[in-house]
Amino acid sequence: MPILVMKFGGTSVANLDRIHRAAKRVALEVAKGYDVIVVVSAMSGETNKLVDHVAGTSPLYDAREYDAVVSSGENVTAGLMALRLQEMEIPARSWQGWQVPVRTTSAHASARIEEIPPANILTKFAEGMRVAVVAGFQGISPEGRITTLGRGGSDTTAVAFAAAFDAERCDIYTDVDGVYTTDPRICEKARKLDRIAFEEMLELASLGAKVLQTRSVELAMRYKVRLRVLSSFEEPSEEAGTLVCAEEDIMESNVVAGVAYSRDEAKVTLISVADRPGIAAAIFGPLAEAGVNVDMIVQNISEDGRTDMTFSCPQDQILRAEQALAAARGSEAIGYSDLVVDRAVAKVSIVGIGMRSHAGVAAKMFATLRDEGVNIKVITTSEIKVSVLIDRKYMELAVQALHDAFGLDQAA
Amino acid sequence: MPILVMKFGGTSVANLDRIHRAAKRVALEVAKGYDVIVVVSAMSGETNKLVDHVAGTSPLYDAREYDAVVSSGENVTAGLMALRLQEMEIPARSWQGWQVPVRTTSAHASARIEEIPPANILTKFAEGMRVAVVAGFQGISPEGRITTLGRGGSDTTAVAFAAAFDAERCDIYTDVDGVYTTDPRICEKARKLDRIAFEEMLELASLGAKVLQTRSVELAMRYKVRLRVLSSFEEPSEEAGTLVCAEEDIMESNVVAGVAYSRDEAKVTLISVADRPGIAAAIFGPLAEAGVNVDMIVQNISEDGRTDMTFSCPQDQILRAEQALAAARGSEAIGYSDLVVDRAVAKVSIVGIGMRSHAGVAAKMFATLRDEGVNIKVITTSEIKVSVLIDRKYMELAVQALHDAFGLDQAA
Repeated sequence: MPILVMKFGGTSVANLDRIHRAAKRVALEVAKGYDVIVVVSAMSGETNKLVDHVAGTSPLYDAREYDAVVSSGENVTAGLMALRLQEMEIPARSWQGWQVPVRTTSAHASARIEEIPPANILTKFAEGMRVAVVAGFQGISPEGRITTLGRGGSDTTAVAFAAAFDAERCDIYTDVDGVYTTDPRICEKARKLDRIAFEEMLELASLGAKVLQTRSVELAMRYKVRLRVLSSFEEPSEEAGTLVCAEEDIMESNVVAGVAYSRDEAKVTLISVADRPGIAAAIFGPLAEAGVNVDMIVQNISEDGRTDMTFSCPQDQILRAEQALAAARGSEAIGYSDLVVDRAVAKVSIVGIGMRSHAGVAAKMFATLRDEGVNIKVITTSEIKVSVLIDRKYMELAVQALHDAFGLDQAA
Repeated sequence: MPILVMKFGGTSVANLDRIHRAAKRVALEVAKGYDVIVVVSAMSGETNKLVDHVAGTSPLYDAREYDAVVSSGENVTAGLMALRLQEMEIPARSWQGWQVPVRTTSAHASARIEEIPPANILTKFAEGMRVAVVAGFQGISPEGRITTLGRGGSDTTAVAFAAAFDAERCDIYTDVDGVYTTDPRICEKARKLDRIAFEEMLELASLGAKVLQTRSVELAMRYKVRLRVLSSFEEPSEEAGTLVCAEEDIMESNVVAGVAYSRDEAKVTLISVADRPGIAAAIFGPLAEAGVNVDMIVQNISEDGRTDMTFSCPQDQILRAEQALAAARGSEAIGYSDLVVDRAVAKVSIVGIGMRSHAGVAAKMFATLRDEGVNIKVITTSEIKVSVLIDRKYMELAVQALHDAFGLDQAA
């Protein structure tokens, strides 16, 4: 029988009623003839409670013990989901990560899945089991210790199972009903997308549209897993949600698929640094070591052997960035004359695979912002994305204007 | 290094502060030079919450899923305890049942431990680990599923580890400070015992003195594990608690070690049953099948081929007992003329290994009760115990009078 993977996040299994509701969705797919692998998160709030217990016990915790503690919430949900399905007379059983086994690296608290041997679960399917309920977010290290994949890791678990079992589709049930052209909270014309390409989803996810964990989309792209994002609170239908799929599965699309933003950015400019080989490494090495997530980087043209270097990072990492640079200034002889920080900037991006074949998309973006009187501070581009740094106060205005300009309220 | 097992029950690890306090006790033993195996229960209330979740999901649950769910509370405590010990710079790690592994039967929800291979933990001790924190109450079946040992199973886990690792002692930390000559709530002269023999503890435990789970005492007796029961809320001292040990480790003791009682008993008499071979099986077979826990059984002398049969059982099982007997009366031709039920009886017992070598103990008990005007309805005896069934209203009086008569307020 074809295999379907269904993943239910914390809000979708927050209490016994919701687990019941989720189980009914599983039953619909079983009735269609699928063997189903259900991946569950912990009941919402449980993992946070466990994380608090760990933090309250040991501020600098041993990540192996952290994993042993925080993985327990998923085990509870998996057992309860299996029981609920059995009550509906569907043959089901739960599987903890080590039972499958979900083999991961030893990088506790942020392990990566290395292998999911499908034999154990396939044997049970062959014996008549219809649903394998898998505890998400967890695995087992080569040393036999419990690992976790990092927050949001259950999405990754689901996609990894879909890949390992060659599933027809991986449905991610969450509390939003799909992927939107932009955030409906700041643009009322935002429209749900029926389909979006993996590459676009990756850009949107990493830009802060937190519908799917980035790693899960990367994994889906690599193994060509058809991912569907949909709400567990809407009536079931074939058209529900957004399908994240390969480019060739999207017949027609707008040039720009969506407008993303990131509100709490900061911009740092190092004035007059020496324009010599290795200067970028001298600056960004210490920042990386200090745990600063540098995003955009721009180097201006050189003049008299000196240049200005600008980068952006999350606003709450500015202090760390300044300290790291001040320390490096002495030891590494970066030798900038001044450091200018702008803490009130935001990033706005347009994303779309259509950009590859359409010229003038960036120009249209810049003209749109000019017409609204928005000054652009930094620009970076990739093959399917153009991002600009602007004053934070113009962020909503920019998102709305770009949404209109690229006709995102209309389907292609 | 010598190995010590320390077990902390749910109230001793009820929150992060109490886990900290328990960890300090562990640290004291580590400082004395022990390698320590700590067995922990779930934080109090957690297991009940999980059991409620299961009951709310599936009234007739699959015991395998029940076990997968309810075992998770112990895993949380084990990880937190290991973290707390690490904070105190004691090398420690947690072990879930399947990691040790604690091999059990497949009797889910009431599994029995079959084997605990010590190699994995001993290897870590040899490498410098000082404390292995083990999640109590759980194991792994031959099929690789998680099992639990039944409520109170963490005591059994602790004793089984003490046996498997040839531990010097197994300390059970709980919320009472030891084993008493009788219940202090009904007899203010009750005195804490320094030592008690396994056999006596077994009789007291099965009579309702719920300090230790019966199975754990049986196991300790079989493997000669020295068990100490003590409170985690008292100051540490060498004399704390009660040592449950082999008879030969007790130099001097009273003839009677304690007075036990069981309040909610009922007495059933079948009048004029045929005194023929197989009559007892015909009566007690159906009762056992109906789940009635028959305790005392007395058969009076026969007269004209008819006899009276009396038994006791818990008061709340009387209805079930009556139904089972009524059904059996037809099918099995038990043929009693009447069935008399007394719902207001209690059982009072004196227990002591000294009875084996002292005559007249039972006679002294009967005389004491006579002097108080207490009528005895049923008597049974074993090698180290005499039990009587009396009117419930005399129960406290009987316990106090026997406590005085056998001098239990004074040490031997």
